[in-house]
Amino acid sequence: MFKGDPRAMGRLISLVEDGAPALGPVMHDLYVRTGHVYSVGVTGAPGAGKSTLTERLIAEIRRHEERVGVLAIDPSSPFSGGALLGDRVRMQAHATDPGVFIRSMATRGHLGGLSLATFEAMHVLEAAGFDVTLVETVGVGQAEVEIADACDTTVVVVNPGWGDAIQTAKAGLMEIADVFVVNKADRPGVRETTQELTRMLELAEADWKPEIVQTTATKSEGIEELWTAVEKHRARQEETGRLESRRRTRTQREIKRIVAERYRRRVEEELAPLLSEMTHEVAARRIDPYEAAGLLMDALEKDAQVM
Amino acid sequence: MFKGDPRAMGRLISLVEDGAPALGPVMHDLYVRTGHVYSVGVTGAPGAGKSTLTERLIAEIRRHEERVGVLAIDPSSPFSGGALLGDRVRMQAHATDPGVFIRSMATRGHLGGLSLATFEAMHVLEAAGFDVTLVETVGVGQAEVEIADACDTTVVVVNPGWGDAIQTAKAGLMEIADVFVVNKADRPGVRETTQELTRMLELAEADWKPEIVQTTATKSEGIEELWTAVEKHRARQEETGRLESRRRTRTQREIKRIVAERYRRRVEEELAPLLSEMTHEVAARRIDPYEAAGLLMDALEKDAQVM
Repeated sequence: MFKGDPRAMGRLISLVEDGAPALGPVMHDLYVRTGHVYSVGVTGAPGAGKSTLTERLIAEIRRHEERVGVLAIDPSSPFSGGALLGDRVRMQAHATDPGVFIRSMATRGHLGGLSLATFEAMHVLEAAGFDVTLVETVGVGQAEVEIADACDTTVVVVNPGWGDAIQTAKAGLMEIADVFVVNKADRPGVRETTQELTRMLELAEADWKPEIVQTTATKSEGIEELWTAVEKHRARQEETGRLESRRRTRTQREIKRIVAERYRRRVEEELAPLLSEMTHEVAARRIDPYEAAGLLMDALEKDAQVM
Repeated sequence: MFKGDPRAMGRLISLVEDGAPALGPVMHDLYVRTGHVYSVGVTGAPGAGKSTLTERLIAEIRRHEERVGVLAIDPSSPFSGGALLGDRVRMQAHATDPGVFIRSMATRGHLGGLSLATFEAMHVLEAAGFDVTLVETVGVGQAEVEIADACDTTVVVVNPGWGDAIQTAKAGLMEIADVFVVNKADRPGVRETTQELTRMLELAEADWKPEIVQTTATKSEGIEELWTAVEKHRARQEETGRLESRRRTRTQREIKRIVAERYRRRVEEELAPLLSEMTHEVAARRIDPYEAAGLLMDALEKDAQVM
């Protein structure tokens, strides 16, 4: 039985990395043990200082004597062999602490399945009995935004400087932020960026106004305030029942995504020759991609009837 | 019949914006007329200057007397009402030119369907008989990377400055680049960034070494060189047959994605009460999300048998 020891977790997450759904029958045993962890997403543009911030948050969470599992999502790259993951090395400060598990997760470009793989990896951490999970996403794309949004509290990291708040809004991060961090707050422009964020938040009619916290992660400044803001958001959500409804929405999205991904796989695995033929017909412009998809769906369902 | 006039194109793309698949029976008529357009993706981190570069590329393409359709993908945001799209205003230089069609496309957070919606919108432009389509994506996420990768030539925009090349690699842009642009080349650090890129490209064993072009889009510098690099990549691909195989891969991916998306929709539309029940069971940890998905798939296929 899975006891949440680091090597078992590592092995399970490696399976997931190769493409979800990967855990099959193990998933039931894992999943029934989840639901007791509070998850925090940390997201923002590349270079915003998310890794350092995450590392400092780990220390802060440990100060509260809570166990923490960390998942760092890195886009797949043949270039990312080691050197580019250098910033993970700093996290080795926690390497000997049994209350901390850190996993950098490559996503090998399985695009549509990115968030599915992340969901699965999160279930592994949840089942391992951590008090808190941190999910750090590199990038500001739709899939990454969705992953951050799949956490109980989402922290969006911006930097001082004109236009950073606007870029953040452009990237769709404004509406998923539960807490804002202006990191690198020892640089000029903190006040302007904070004002810009405040102004943009005033335009939104949300029931929760994200707090804006200033941090200088490299100097460990503002980290306690950041964690307090996360806990405040958590308490508020627990009071209002928002946490439960948010988790339910997430579960429903995950289920639908699994259905979609499984059918995509069935096409690849059961209908490879027909898929090839259809691709040829579409390339020749005899049929359109939707007609091709329809024919493949007919074939899948005819199989079901035969069985 | 669709003649590719701007208003008809606008209407069709608006339909797609609300979520693909949207075009239904119109798609066949559109699709059979596609295949004669060369598509160029322009991507890179927020703030890299992609919009200005795209605008200058339009002018360059028009100089060659080719008609150009532009699709600018903006992440959905309630905050993006008007002001944030200000940089599109610059593109109005081309507003009276009938050989140019520019459409900024909101994606209303339909996540999994992001690239599907973009594929559909691209088909609309292709059917309209442009010579070239430009697809500009804001963001550096997985879905955005995939969209850029769905073009015949992908231009990745970086800026001078230490670490920008590394951030680019981290974002998974290294392996999709057919041409690199170091934009804002009037700033310090151009040489270092170019060297950094060169070094990283040497590590990769690709059959095509992306050219690195330096531009200062705001001053229209380097734009002609950029377009020459794109055309060179095009010629090379046409010679080697790579263009055809690349397009075929893309078509196959699109077909599989349509199948997945349609099943996701069928769950939402045909099985709403069962989905609700399954979500409840999963939330109570009586079953896991994969078991729930399996039960929904059984229900879909039982429906097929009854028919």
